[in-house]
Amino acid sequence: MKKQQRINYPASKKIYIKGKIHDIQVGMRSVTLLDTITMENGKKQVEPNNPVILYDTSGAYSNPDIPIDITKGLVRLRQEWIEKRNDTELLPSFSSNYCKERLSDSSLNKIRFPLTNLPRKAKSGNAITQMYYACQGIITPEMEYVAIRENQQNEQLGIETHITPEFVRQEIASGKAIIPANINHPEAEPMIIGTNFLVKINTNIGNSSLMSGIDEEVEKAIWSCKWGGDTLMDLSTGEHIHETREWIIRNTPVPVGTVPLYQTLEKLNGRITDLNWEIYRDTLIEQCEQGVDYFTIHAGLLRSHLPLLKNRTTGIVSRGGSIIANWMTQHQKENLFYTHFEDICLLLKQYDVAVSLGDGLRPGCIADANDAGQFAELSVLGELTKIAWKHHVQVLIEGPGHVPMHKIRPNMDEQLKHCHGAPFYTLGPLTTDIAPGYDHITSAIGAAQIARYGTAMICYVTPKEHLSLPDKEDVRTGVIAYKIAAHAADLAKGHPGAQVRDNALSKARFDFRWKDQFNLSLDPEKALEYYRTGRLGDESGHCTMCGPHFCAMKLTKEMNDCALTE
Amino acid sequence: MKKQQRINYPASKKIYIKGKIHDIQVGMRSVTLLDTITMENGKKQVEPNNPVILYDTSGAYSNPDIPIDITKGLVRLRQEWIEKRNDTELLPSFSSNYCKERLSDSSLNKIRFPLTNLPRKAKSGNAITQMYYACQGIITPEMEYVAIRENQQNEQLGIETHITPEFVRQEIASGKAIIPANINHPEAEPMIIGTNFLVKINTNIGNSSLMSGIDEEVEKAIWSCKWGGDTLMDLSTGEHIHETREWIIRNTPVPVGTVPLYQTLEKLNGRITDLNWEIYRDTLIEQCEQGVDYFTIHAGLLRSHLPLLKNRTTGIVSRGGSIIANWMTQHQKENLFYTHFEDICLLLKQYDVAVSLGDGLRPGCIADANDAGQFAELSVLGELTKIAWKHHVQVLIEGPGHVPMHKIRPNMDEQLKHCHGAPFYTLGPLTTDIAPGYDHITSAIGAAQIARYGTAMICYVTPKEHLSLPDKEDVRTGVIAYKIAAHAADLAKGHPGAQVRDNALSKARFDFRWKDQFNLSLDPEKALEYYRTGRLGDESGHCTMCGPHFCAMKLTKEMNDCALTE
Repeated sequence: MKKQQRINYPASKKIYIKGKIHDIQVGMRSVTLLDTITMENGKKQVEPNNPVILYDTSGAYSNPDIPIDITKGLVRLRQEWIEKRNDTELLPSFSSNYCKERLSDSSLNKIRFPLTNLPRKAKSGNAITQMYYACQGIITPEMEYVAIRENQQNEQLGIETHITPEFVRQEIASGKAIIPANINHPEAEPMIIGTNFLVKINTNIGNSSLMSGIDEEVEKAIWSCKWGGDTLMDLSTGEHIHETREWIIRNTPVPVGTVPLYQTLEKLNGRITDLNWEIYRDTLIEQCEQGVDYFTIHAGLLRSHLPLLKNRTTGIVSRGGSIIANWMTQHQKENLFYTHFEDICLLLKQYDVAVSLGDGLRPGCIADANDAGQFAELSVLGELTKIAWKHHVQVLIEGPGHVPMHKIRPNMDEQLKHCHGAPFYTLGPLTTDIAPGYDHITSAIGAAQIARYGTAMICYVTPKEHLSLPDKEDVRTGVIAYKIAAHAADLAKGHPGAQVRDNALSKARFDFRWKDQFNLSLDPEKALEYYRTGRLGDESGHCTMCGPHFCAMKLTKEMNDCALTE
Repeated sequence: MKKQQRINYPASKKIYIKGKIHDIQVGMRSVTLLDTITMENGKKQVEPNNPVILYDTSGAYSNPDIPIDITKGLVRLRQEWIEKRNDTELLPSFSSNYCKERLSDSSLNKIRFPLTNLPRKAKSGNAITQMYYACQGIITPEMEYVAIRENQQNEQLGIETHITPEFVRQEIASGKAIIPANINHPEAEPMIIGTNFLVKINTNIGNSSLMSGIDEEVEKAIWSCKWGGDTLMDLSTGEHIHETREWIIRNTPVPVGTVPLYQTLEKLNGRITDLNWEIYRDTLIEQCEQGVDYFTIHAGLLRSHLPLLKNRTTGIVSRGGSIIANWMTQHQKENLFYTHFEDICLLLKQYDVAVSLGDGLRPGCIADANDAGQFAELSVLGELTKIAWKHHVQVLIEGPGHVPMHKIRPNMDEQLKHCHGAPFYTLGPLTTDIAPGYDHITSAIGAAQIARYGTAMICYVTPKEHLSLPDKEDVRTGVIAYKIAAHAADLAKGHPGAQVRDNALSKARFDFRWKDQFNLSLDPEKALEYYRTGRLGDESGHCTMCGPHFCAMKLTKEMNDCALTE
């Protein structure tokens, strides 16, 4: 790996908030602000501004006191918590055939992550999931962690909040929220996905067979965390998937998801016909033991749905969906993920891997939105949810795709109707098809709205969607577009404390505290860069847009005393 | 002026659709598509795809058969229509003192637009507005023009539409829509702004005193039309406003708006105290005779509103609003635009300049959204609307600003309640304050929603908002973000024919007709650029994102015959 990775946020320090139930420390970012300075009757008045405490996805990378070494991986934050529960055991070796094969292949040594942590698994096959504990009435350290994390500075500011550790437990127990937390990914900081919590965003990375390598993927993972990605899906389809993923998981402080089918097909050199339960199961075990936190599984697309697609404009646009549809067609058999769904749950519950029920029939264009195929599959996803919950496997429901604005609410309502409150996790949706090159925007418009109506996590779309694979700048742009959508939804939902940051930034704007404005923004570097392109003179007193004469905020200040007290 | 300006759209030709009532020709853009080629039983099947006809804001610039010379200005399309009505006359000279002064200043010759068209005005002070004609039951060429323009290819495709010339007339007569069409800007192609028509977007340009010059502003105006800007506001505050505006108006095929107060204050060297009706009136006449199509006038902000702002986080953020508020405070007088509003209407109706009632108290942050001050002013705007309509002056109502998503609908409802159906024209709104550098996105999210609920025109925001003045690339990005928002709203409102373009593009996507996909997109150049960054091989058969093995659409095609007919 080429370099030390570090994340610096301006005027920010890492702070840790202690738990009250458990011996935990929740990392947050505290942004220090300048004083507000006003003149009153010729006298300078100084009013200090409290620091703003922000939700922080950057983990140890933004703490200069913690040494970072990519070849060693992050500190295993949750290891002690997991051990203390005493319901799991370290295995003597990896269980999947594939992992054994890769470990014994010495030609891979030069690209392999250099440390091997043996995998952990439930003792005697029991569920050891957060949902299981929640149903037992147990508040885990993970649950307290997310409760603190979600509250930002509410306690300090006296903002009332419903989000207590006990509330978290109830939400997890009911299936309305999940904490993706594979016991083999103890490096990840707990986070919660549910409609009654902050809206989360997922970013996708992945080396397709055409482009990019391990270095770049790890760098992208950290980059995504820097800008605020809450979870990360590794959608690699190229060579060395196994090794790349190991590097990513060991160095990523957020939950990691995958679509295990992709790797399974790599193992089969792309021969869909050869797909079978045994090789898929081996892949699930391989990834469970590596530490993947959630799996997208396209178990809801049934043979009976295929005729519903006859009149679609863009057919199936989900890779996983199209693969399993082809397999079903070739073998004239029902979807093997559906028929083996209970087997899958029996496996996942032993590692606490959440299942993200894939929407293989998500609409790929406006014309196909909310059609019979999409909703038929959604209804099966609801059925599968019940099965997963029976095994205390945590569940996400995946959603579209391309949906015009007037069909967003009906789509959300359909999910609520069929899926028993399991959190919805959507890709966008894109609200028009006509803007390739700008689909981070077409989809942020849809994502903000569906999140407002209850979607718990939105999967980002980059400007390169439909066109090419995203590079680092595209990832940044996509993440920020989605942080905007998520935050706009948090505001609209009245999430406790969400508006604190807006208020602080706007006060800074009105005070001409430019640096505070930038430091509080989602992308301080970009804001500063744009600001500098327009600067000719000093750094205060008016903004570059209006020029010195007609700055509205300056004029407001000038008349403030006399006018507003009339 | 430095160069020949031309606009090229790929695979597109300019077509003209003839009127049935009037001898008019409506310029549209026709995009030629490739054939869909499929294999059936080993035989190649060729299915031709109809060209897609698009609404076109680029005027003559995209017609290679029309000579373009910036120093001569565009063809005066509407001149004959206006003359034929026989209710206006050419004046022997310009009426405003300021214009006379400038014309007699020979030092300005080198920057002056070289041709002088004498101004036109209503004979004997009568109203000669589109609203006046509509109320008389007259369908003008302008009305038929916009009816054809709005319908795109509906007739050809058999899509039912409510938009007939008679419907246009009714909407204009009722005040629910406007056609901004100053008789002194006959170069502009008629367009309509109203909730029952395609959502329109406005772009702002303008040389602040700090940056940019005439060349650049004219280039930006044409640039804005290229990407789809429907109207253009010239917000210049620097030197040579008068001369810059002349260049812009003579060369712009879309309506041009201004805030006359800005220039008035330039004339007063920024001394707000010296603002008075006479100099403002002279500025209005100057701009009426130059051809400005609509004026933003902050007539609804009253003295009694100022105390309502006491607890605002960002006070007044409208330049015009802050200026008039300061003036009222200094003079202890009521807003002179309010007290002279009837005088203003008497002037505007003689040139058919529409009034855009400015929202001086628009909220500048989430905290101030939908507050008492904002809504108090909105209610006065409704009162002024009635006065303007009495004189058959066409009216737009301006709106915010910064509004969180859950307050967007209530804001729209408040406008509908108070403003008698006059079209709403909003700046965004931005749905969060925390993303300077990305406010084209925060605001496109809000703009799409408020447009869906009925806003007729949305004013773009560029990435540089709050930070600096936009350059050409920022204008492009801002325009496209707003074309997306507007189109998303058109789809959600079920505008007749709006989805034709989405369907054609998505079919092209499914067919791997990459070029058609790009040519139909809002920004073909960007789409192609991004596509090329990811290309290593051929141009068909799979997309760069999935790689060759797992392309969902390719897989769908492979199984299509057998599966979908099961």
